[in-house]
Amino acid sequence: MAVQPLLIDGAWRAAQELRGSFRAEDPSSGEAIGAAFPICGEADVRAALAAAVAVADALAAVPVERIAAFLDAYADAIDADVDTLVALAHAETALPKEPRLAKVELPRASGQLRQAAQAVRQYSWTHPVIDTAAGLRSHYAPLGKPVLILGPNNFPFAFNAIAGSDFASAIAARNPVIAKAHPSHPATSERLAQLAHTALLQTGLPPASVQMLYQFEHSLGAALAGNPQLGAIGFTGSRAGGLALKAAADTVGVPVYVELSSVNPVFLLPGVLAERAASLAQEFFASCTMGSGQFCTSPGIVVVPAGAAGDAFVDAASKHFAAAAPNVLFSGAVLEHLQRGVATLRAAGAECLAGGASAGPGYRYQPTLLSVDAAQFLREPRALQTEAFGPVSLVLRAADVSQMAELARAFEGNLTGTLYRAQDGSDDDAWRQIAHALRPRVGRLINNKMPTGVAVSPAMNHGGPYPSTGHPGFTAVGMPAAIRRFAALHCYDNVPESQLPADLRDHNPGAIARLIDGVWRVNDLNGPTT
Amino acid sequence: MAVQPLLIDGAWRAAQELRGSFRAEDPSSGEAIGAAFPICGEADVRAALAAAVAVADALAAVPVERIAAFLDAYADAIDADVDTLVALAHAETALPKEPRLAKVELPRASGQLRQAAQAVRQYSWTHPVIDTAAGLRSHYAPLGKPVLILGPNNFPFAFNAIAGSDFASAIAARNPVIAKAHPSHPATSERLAQLAHTALLQTGLPPASVQMLYQFEHSLGAALAGNPQLGAIGFTGSRAGGLALKAAADTVGVPVYVELSSVNPVFLLPGVLAERAASLAQEFFASCTMGSGQFCTSPGIVVVPAGAAGDAFVDAASKHFAAAAPNVLFSGAVLEHLQRGVATLRAAGAECLAGGASAGPGYRYQPTLLSVDAAQFLREPRALQTEAFGPVSLVLRAADVSQMAELARAFEGNLTGTLYRAQDGSDDDAWRQIAHALRPRVGRLINNKMPTGVAVSPAMNHGGPYPSTGHPGFTAVGMPAAIRRFAALHCYDNVPESQLPADLRDHNPGAIARLIDGVWRVNDLNGPTT
Repeated sequence: MAVQPLLIDGAWRAAQELRGSFRAEDPSSGEAIGAAFPICGEADVRAALAAAVAVADALAAVPVERIAAFLDAYADAIDADVDTLVALAHAETALPKEPRLAKVELPRASGQLRQAAQAVRQYSWTHPVIDTAAGLRSHYAPLGKPVLILGPNNFPFAFNAIAGSDFASAIAARNPVIAKAHPSHPATSERLAQLAHTALLQTGLPPASVQMLYQFEHSLGAALAGNPQLGAIGFTGSRAGGLALKAAADTVGVPVYVELSSVNPVFLLPGVLAERAASLAQEFFASCTMGSGQFCTSPGIVVVPAGAAGDAFVDAASKHFAAAAPNVLFSGAVLEHLQRGVATLRAAGAECLAGGASAGPGYRYQPTLLSVDAAQFLREPRALQTEAFGPVSLVLRAADVSQMAELARAFEGNLTGTLYRAQDGSDDDAWRQIAHALRPRVGRLINNKMPTGVAVSPAMNHGGPYPSTGHPGFTAVGMPAAIRRFAALHCYDNVPESQLPADLRDHNPGAIARLIDGVWRVNDLNGPTT
Repeated sequence: MAVQPLLIDGAWRAAQELRGSFRAEDPSSGEAIGAAFPICGEADVRAALAAAVAVADALAAVPVERIAAFLDAYADAIDADVDTLVALAHAETALPKEPRLAKVELPRASGQLRQAAQAVRQYSWTHPVIDTAAGLRSHYAPLGKPVLILGPNNFPFAFNAIAGSDFASAIAARNPVIAKAHPSHPATSERLAQLAHTALLQTGLPPASVQMLYQFEHSLGAALAGNPQLGAIGFTGSRAGGLALKAAADTVGVPVYVELSSVNPVFLLPGVLAERAASLAQEFFASCTMGSGQFCTSPGIVVVPAGAAGDAFVDAASKHFAAAAPNVLFSGAVLEHLQRGVATLRAAGAECLAGGASAGPGYRYQPTLLSVDAAQFLREPRALQTEAFGPVSLVLRAADVSQMAELARAFEGNLTGTLYRAQDGSDDDAWRQIAHALRPRVGRLINNKMPTGVAVSPAMNHGGPYPSTGHPGFTAVGMPAAIRRFAALHCYDNVPESQLPADLRDHNPGAIARLIDGVWRVNDLNGPTT
């Protein structure tokens, strides 16, 4: 069987060192589908790195309008190819074509590329700072080195290594990208790479600015991550995989942005449970099983007080979980990981209220609700925070609000933390107490809604304290902040104006927002202040 | 002999687990001076960590005005104590009392604390972003965990672990600080800690917000750095020490900001050498020997073209170096490190043009100029970039401008890179070519001045690509940017206005600059745009 080519150094070409091949699977049947994709070898990884290194300076010097034009052209090409892309992604992931793939995720991906283009045109990510008295001007600038991006299984478009937020961010900062597709959706990734490649050629960016590899051995991945010629790494996926990459990158000082695991605790306060336990159970179940629960922000833990209102919620939620058909997961690997996770939770004392078993055909698992009392959680906090990636959540039954706050303090770093409270104000004191405990442990503090929506907004934080990510100061979603991950701070000291980058010059025709002598201004350096 | 106490949990107290003691030395004589300071044990380190962890939430919740009041009160106390502080620092470091210690560094330290206070009052470091349509508001916030700061030997005030830029930044972000003094100036550090402690009590901050340890075994330092209860680490010092801390911190996801080593290449272009080789030689010599060359940004490499003008510079510089008296270094450890560095450079082919030997009494070393040709440098780039911390610089003789650019591309990450060019415009093309190659490899690109001045400015970047620091996106100097190192990104999603932090509320009485729906504004959320 023929094996698909790699995109290396501006051309589609066969792997130089083919170590094997793999095919995608239809997760709903477990059957192999589509073409065979290459497991490449060291020669290919080296070739991609060398080509990216060689093009880095040229890409950093490309006029920003051309970068923005590429991002827009690529976004347009994705939108125009919606039928083919959605068909491929549906076949490879079993995610629903509508609304999820066609109406939500694909527009999210193209919209994200356009937001990156806008950030490029407006220089909103470069944060220019000028100190006229000291003769200093600084801004964020390209790394001048390639960015390696490894995408996750759960968003074939919006977090794809060659189309998602990391990709848009790294290119917006004018860094070459080496994308490693997730092996569960290679044909979708290939199609996107073809569109990206065409857009590169159309807009005249250096052709090696975007390269695509599919699969290689873990040891090669670690060697690549530990190569100081890399400028940075973006990774979204499992904790084990991310930590292995981070360890390799850390030894050579390569900044590595890993989005790892998160259980996203949800606290349901006594008053809101009294007001609407049944509707909360419905809302919670929908959030847990959206995308078969395969979301970074899926509510993996829900904290519910003891007593009748809590019982009503747990009973209603259990019924939803028990009545639901098994959910299709992305792959056998996801299913195995989920089974191990559930086993860990049960071994640590969690009791199964509904679901708890896999099913066929393909890779299916029953929506599963587990429960454990707070005292047991506090005895085994590590094991009971194990992420069971899939349609699984763990109910923690707390004695009272004070124990809920104690639980909040026992959580590891998470992407999100959520509190629901009553309309009548009866939960307000409890809300404050728990929110205070939760705040330093989560990236996004959410009130009265489930965590599974992640808006692409400048004010979003899709990040959080370790181990949800590797650094609490960065977000993986939201322009322009996400771009800063792939940027270096550059200062110019006593450098003549003619030799400065456009956003640091006196004349500011694009009305870039700049911090000049302590004041944000959008006009020329010597123009009137507003 | 009595041993000085530690500042732990808000009180001066004897080490619980005394492992030994040490005294400072007068570097000009090598004689031990002053009191004995404790080498503490694990119990003390644990006690400091526990106290800092216990106070972190409370400090994060302190009104910002009180944080600013502490920083100002501490700055005032430092200014008022100038005679004592300068006398102590002079005795321990042999740095000149005037102008360096009394007129430059001490005012720099107190000024930096006041700039941090101003950043706190103006919220200029929190970068509030509001998306009204999405219901999202985000900003930078305290880590909610302690920051460990390890200061260097070379700035007893301005980078002191308990008074310098890292300290001011971590406190401004409302994180407790565990300061580890540099053992070469313990009495200076103790005096500063006393002033800080008094200012804490005066302004009502939690007393455990600032703690002081002097010395402990490396293994204890690594264990502390690898403790996930820490929020971040700030380190300035040697590459070996910094990398050991970084390795420990990386394994548990503790953000670690290390400022390591830098040779700060200076390029003298042909035209400027023809115009003023002699004055450049004087300027260069002064920069190399300022503070006995013990600056992070000391020009450790100077690139000079072949030919008569280059020869004139090298001859004149050599004479300055040869005529100068030996410089006093901070300690025997610095002297040993310098001797090893020079030996490495010589072993890699560098020839000694002037100096090259140590001298007594105390810890002295001759201002030393070495030289090597560019071809040899390109054969041994690692060894010939060894930092020889002290009054030592290496001349690289390049065949032509094109080889100068090749050298620029061969440099590791540096804090600074400098180019000097002619007034008559004859160097402009060469400047552009070399600056382009140097730009991605340095944090600060400098034109026509030596790198040894580091202004405390919002537009400063005292940072650079690895291995000059551990992350190219952060600066260790300059408010408010330096504060962001010790901050977490916090997002509020659908959270009622009454529960938001002050800088994210609708009403904006302090005229904080905020990015609201894509526009920087300083007024209320619902007020008129300006």
